[in-house]
Amino acid sequence: MKQLRIGMIGYKFMGKAHSNAYRSLPMFFPQALKPQMSVICGRNEEALQEAAGQLGWSEGVTDWKELVSRSDIDLIDINAPSNAHKEIALAAAAAGKHIFCEKPLALNLADSREMLQAAEAAGIVHMVGFNYRFSPAVRLAKRLIESGRLGKIYHFRAWFLQDWILDPEFPLVWRLQKEIAGSGSHGDLGAHLIDLAHFLVGDVQEVIGMSETFVKERPLATEMTGLSARASKDAPRGAVTVDDATLFLARFANGTLGSFEATRFAAGHRSTNSFEINGSLGSVKFDFERMNELEVYLTSDDEDVQGFRRVLATDPAHDYAEAWWPPGHTIGFEHTFIHEMLELSDAIAEGRQPEPNFRDGVKCQAVLEAVERSIEERRWVPISEM
Amino acid sequence: MKQLRIGMIGYKFMGKAHSNAYRSLPMFFPQALKPQMSVICGRNEEALQEAAGQLGWSEGVTDWKELVSRSDIDLIDINAPSNAHKEIALAAAAAGKHIFCEKPLALNLADSREMLQAAEAAGIVHMVGFNYRFSPAVRLAKRLIESGRLGKIYHFRAWFLQDWILDPEFPLVWRLQKEIAGSGSHGDLGAHLIDLAHFLVGDVQEVIGMSETFVKERPLATEMTGLSARASKDAPRGAVTVDDATLFLARFANGTLGSFEATRFAAGHRSTNSFEINGSLGSVKFDFERMNELEVYLTSDDEDVQGFRRVLATDPAHDYAEAWWPPGHTIGFEHTFIHEMLELSDAIAEGRQPEPNFRDGVKCQAVLEAVERSIEERRWVPISEM
Amino acid sequence: MKQLRIGMIGYKFMGKAHSNAYRSLPMFFPQALKPQMSVICGRNEEALQEAAGQLGWSEGVTDWKELVSRSDIDLIDINAPSNAHKEIALAAAAAGKHIFCEKPLALNLADSREMLQAAEAAGIVHMVGFNYRFSPAVRLAKRLIESGRLGKIYHFRAWFLQDWILDPEFPLVWRLQKEIAGSGSHGDLGAHLIDLAHFLVGDVQEVIGMSETFVKERPLATEMTGLSARASKDAPRGAVTVDDATLFLARFANGTLGSFEATRFAAGHRSTNSFEINGSLGSVKFDFERMNELEVYLTSDDEDVQGFRRVLATDPAHDYAEAWWPPGHTIGFEHTFIHEMLELSDAIAEGRQPEPNFRDGVKCQAVLEAVERSIEERRWVPISEM
Amino acid sequence: MKQLRIGMIGYKFMGKAHSNAYRSLPMFFPQALKPQMSVICGRNEEALQEAAGQLGWSEGVTDWKELVSRSDIDLIDINAPSNAHKEIALAAAAAGKHIFCEKPLALNLADSREMLQAAEAAGIVHMVGFNYRFSPAVRLAKRLIESGRLGKIYHFRAWFLQDWILDPEFPLVWRLQKEIAGSGSHGDLGAHLIDLAHFLVGDVQEVIGMSETFVKERPLATEMTGLSARASKDAPRGAVTVDDATLFLARFANGTLGSFEATRFAAGHRSTNSFEINGSLGSVKFDFERMNELEVYLTSDDEDVQGFRRVLATDPAHDYAEAWWPPGHTIGFEHTFIHEMLELSDAIAEGRQPEPNFRDGVKCQAVLEAVERSIEERRWVPISEM
Repeated sequence: MKQLRIGMIGYKFMGKAHSNAYRSLPMFFPQALKPQMSVICGRNEEALQEAAGQLGWSEGVTDWKELVSRSDIDLIDINAPSNAHKEIALAAAAAGKHIFCEKPLALNLADSREMLQAAEAAGIVHMVGFNYRFSPAVRLAKRLIESGRLGKIYHFRAWFLQDWILDPEFPLVWRLQKEIAGSGSHGDLGAHLIDLAHFLVGDVQEVIGMSETFVKERPLATEMTGLSARASKDAPRGAVTVDDATLFLARFANGTLGSFEATRFAAGHRSTNSFEINGSLGSVKFDFERMNELEVYLTSDDEDVQGFRRVLATDPAHDYAEAWWPPGHTIGFEHTFIHEMLELSDAIAEGRQPEPNFRDGVKCQAVLEAVERSIEERRWVPISEM
Repeated sequence: MKQLRIGMIGYKFMGKAHSNAYRSLPMFFPQALKPQMSVICGRNEEALQEAAGQLGWSEGVTDWKELVSRSDIDLIDINAPSNAHKEIALAAAAAGKHIFCEKPLALNLADSREMLQAAEAAGIVHMVGFNYRFSPAVRLAKRLIESGRLGKIYHFRAWFLQDWILDPEFPLVWRLQKEIAGSGSHGDLGAHLIDLAHFLVGDVQEVIGMSETFVKERPLATEMTGLSARASKDAPRGAVTVDDATLFLARFANGTLGSFEATRFAAGHRSTNSFEINGSLGSVKFDFERMNELEVYLTSDDEDVQGFRRVLATDPAHDYAEAWWPPGHTIGFEHTFIHEMLELSDAIAEGRQPEPNFRDGVKCQAVLEAVERSIEERRWVPISEM
Repeated sequence: MKQLRIGMIGYKFMGKAHSNAYRSLPMFFPQALKPQMSVICGRNEEALQEAAGQLGWSEGVTDWKELVSRSDIDLIDINAPSNAHKEIALAAAAAGKHIFCEKPLALNLADSREMLQAAEAAGIVHMVGFNYRFSPAVRLAKRLIESGRLGKIYHFRAWFLQDWILDPEFPLVWRLQKEIAGSGSHGDLGAHLIDLAHFLVGDVQEVIGMSETFVKERPLATEMTGLSARASKDAPRGAVTVDDATLFLARFANGTLGSFEATRFAAGHRSTNSFEINGSLGSVKFDFERMNELEVYLTSDDEDVQGFRRVLATDPAHDYAEAWWPPGHTIGFEHTFIHEMLELSDAIAEGRQPEPNFRDGVKCQAVLEAVERSIEERRWVPISEM
Repeated sequence: MKQLRIGMIGYKFMGKAHSNAYRSLPMFFPQALKPQMSVICGRNEEALQEAAGQLGWSEGVTDWKELVSRSDIDLIDINAPSNAHKEIALAAAAAGKHIFCEKPLALNLADSREMLQAAEAAGIVHMVGFNYRFSPAVRLAKRLIESGRLGKIYHFRAWFLQDWILDPEFPLVWRLQKEIAGSGSHGDLGAHLIDLAHFLVGDVQEVIGMSETFVKERPLATEMTGLSARASKDAPRGAVTVDDATLFLARFANGTLGSFEATRFAAGHRSTNSFEINGSLGSVKFDFERMNELEVYLTSDDEDVQGFRRVLATDPAHDYAEAWWPPGHTIGFEHTFIHEMLELSDAIAEGRQPEPNFRDGVKCQAVLEAVERSIEERRWVPISEM
């Protein structure tokens, strides 16, 4: 069995999700390359060593530059904050390492293009972390569309709704600071919707958007993990420099009409990542809070029993399902990463680019930035302009 | 257009539902006999006259005996409290009037049999008010079963859950008194489930039940309408003499296993009248709180899109739907009565017995009473024994 | 009891819904004025007389001009095709009749303003038929917002999805012809969403939209009722001159972000008229296919039991509910019209304008037209510009 | 960090779930004992070695007797077919090993009692695998009940519905043979419901049941994994010797009325493990196919917003949730086992018995067997009789 020696930079929310994926791969997908969780890298020595122990990495180092140049590493996994992606990726590519980079690929389109060029020039395998593609229910949607069972696609509407910063006293974490995060709901949540649109429907042709920062100042954070954080009592306040919500309309190259909404101010929605697609022969609906399910409507059903059916994507007929549990026994959020790492592993083993790769990251970034430009300039922006 | 001259006894919850049905029939089903809302009858002169005016009856009388013998009446509609059903029905049959009688037909099996015999001897048209049969979604279930699309039926489970007497201070209304109501949740709610079982699956062979009165004393009621009522402060208390909840298991003649539950103590369920049927080729689920919908599962669906589909029974393919509104525009509780009166009208016009008729009322009563006996004697009771 | 003598112009889908509402009002809302269904008016003599009989009108006439000038009529109900609204309304106002006019008020903003001015000049009571305001669940949403229980409103998203013209062979009915219908999905479905936005959130400040006609030619229709129609085999084809789908983004005067979508090409959606509102203290969701329900989320719930609750708006605490059936016994589409006519009746009795009235019709038309202009000119259009 | 050295007997469906749990424990619950996946045991040498490699065990042995006596093992994990449980457990107890045993504890009550006595005599820690207790949503139900927030419990109804043997050609796997499996749907599925009833409501007092084997003969199986299997074409047939479905009514010691149904013949239900509990102050509903959710109704809600709320048990307020992902990011079936192993680990570390332990296994077996006796003897059977 061939091994895949990994150096991972970052150890918080995504670091944990990736570690779990590498660790789980051999048990459920024994045909994959065997990930070696070799080196984990972070700035805080103490936290790093604790993470290394808990997450199962053999070694912890604080200097990522040293890490990317080590000869005993095949793959660099980048899940550090977004503003660090580019520099690390360029160095890793230069060192000839394969790269798995969390989304967003970079803080802006120019940087992401530079990363893609570097990766292509270096001839490495590169992947970007749009993990929602890897839900079995989303794969089912993809198969229905690709096989023509939904017909011509008329509508794609998608919304990613969260509420973790609804409280105005929630602290000013890094995800709310433009210089680190790049953007707010748009780059964090909207990016996933855009990638799903690319995956399921195709290229976007032009966009126009609208955004808002509802709460403009927040107490400075003292601590953050995942999507939770704390501020000390009477903490000084700082400006929120990213969007709380961004909506946009889109016209796709194939004529589909698109509607997108990303917000962190939707009370009651912990993480509703949802889309609906309407075609001439049928429709599908998906909500990540019920990620094992796809609602499917087919016009070919007998006329007295037409309706959206709730398909539980845990049957042998569904992607990945047989590797897991019997039908009806569901999987969760973390499994999307395991499937993602399977695609990465397969691509490396087969000497091809995985999907989604840096090209998809660039494409997503182009739409994100076109939306931002459309907001600034209050006009429709063609993606070709970017 | 032939007319149907009606005398109705009772003017509360059911009286209103029936009046609305008679009044609506010509507008939506112009092919039906034209109901003449001739005479309404009740004991309280003042309330009666008010009801007559509001509900649209030409005349109000307080003596039902006089009413049933009038020559200008074709149909007697009985929706007085259950303990009055028998005497009225016998008199109406003797007078040669057609009869529509609310469920339960009578307080006990013997009385209901007497009513059936009288009706048959008199050669009149007789119907019993199991209105839930007349939901388009229930009709769809019936069609799927009858056409064999669900295959051999293995399971029927049904529950009718309400919570209107959950509060121990809710008053002792007539529905909680055995001498007037006959029984509690069992006769009121369970009766509907049993009729649906007969309609959809077939004859019950044997039963065993369990029941309970959770709140044994309540303040005496001063007023009651529909399912709401009031008691005066510090009202004296009286004993609840009916069941708050009754459950039973049943084996059907065709081998189906049945499970039934009726309760007025299910917090959060205003009126969940629900069943599920599992067959060798498919399943259906129904809940009256979403009465326009039937969930349908068919094993013949392609293996990657199998799942319960939510069918909105408002399409032209569904019973009654074309008389109403365009697809997707729903109907409500009261419409079951309009459809019921259509069947009554059609039966009278065609000189046949409607379904459900007194035979179905007797069959239901037999199961109700078999369950009661099974509870008393703590044993399985075959229906044939009743 | 004071009477309200009505002359109604139109007798198809809306004519039936209105007739049923007038007929039902006295039974369920006896405090209202008593509608006299005096005269119905239509162009086809034969169909008209049949409708008069079935719908319960005393008299049928073919000349609307004669009707609006009759001295024995108090109210003119206009539900003829949209292109006839203006002329009739102006004549009725001139004759001093109160007016109930179906939406859309007119084919364009200028016409609707003319109608409003005429109505105001005449001092009559005027109302426009945005019936969805009258769902008890929508009223509950309104109460939650008005009482501050949802806090500051951040998001309003609404979609009205139908699929009745999904089939390219569905005929070219009047609703698909600009000169009669004014617009397509936008004016038919979007108008309802806009009115709900006005009702629930407030004034729209600026909009930008996008629309499409997916099927550009259809066979000419031979017959149409409600949303169904037929074409003869090999019928000649004509151009569809209205939009099949229109989407737009909106910014409200109070800072709320809005997203609207109306389409007749959403397979599986017979009539999904749905909105969600997110505020700083809670959220609500509504879907007309489950019109008795409102999903409500409140941040004030205990932290371990936070979630959207499914409120069945059939309790005494809900608007209109006590006039109907006991809790849990649902109502349907047609009931929105009965409640609408109650508001009309109350307004006339109290000598005030009902809500929604022609002002609301004009406001809606202004947004509709601003969206159309934004599509044509590919730019954000402020409502103040209209 | 203290270690827990494990020897596991069995390597199929449950063996994989347990292995994954042991492997995952340190990453997500670093405070737990560190499981050492030392030895795996099975009869087929080749399959065993493959499983050992894939599942991550250091060593594979074919003789369980040798395994239970090894001095380098602390815990014996028994997930071999049910008919092997007793002999292994007695030997492991005799050797002083802690025991984790999959449910059902044994083929009958007598055997399970013998196992409990042996475990208690040996002073070991013993646990039984009722994993559904460890869903965060089920824990939430438990907390609501224990804290009195649901009030006095009136109703417990539960159903475990599957459809994997609906096809009469599905082969005769070991789960359909009484001598290996003990019973069918009753012991496999019903056992879980009974344990949940014990956990959430309390002791059962008396029961009466009904069961059926719908398909009495099936082709012999050639291969089985999880819930899927294959038979060769024209395989000989054998008798199904267990129940396909078993239903029973129960009265609990505290007066709650219970209804239970387990079946493998419910088309469309891949694995619906569902219960509802109604109390005087509220209700809860659970369905394992949506295991992250608990529906909660509380009578204390304001009267205009009463309804079942969908609580996603992924918030910090919910058991286990903080160890996983941010709110709204769901977990799956396998996580119940990880939580189960956490309880096992904690109990061993703290020198106490975990819950559920062999006492719970015996209690469950007593109810299972009382139901069987009630079916045979067609009478109510008190649990005290067993």
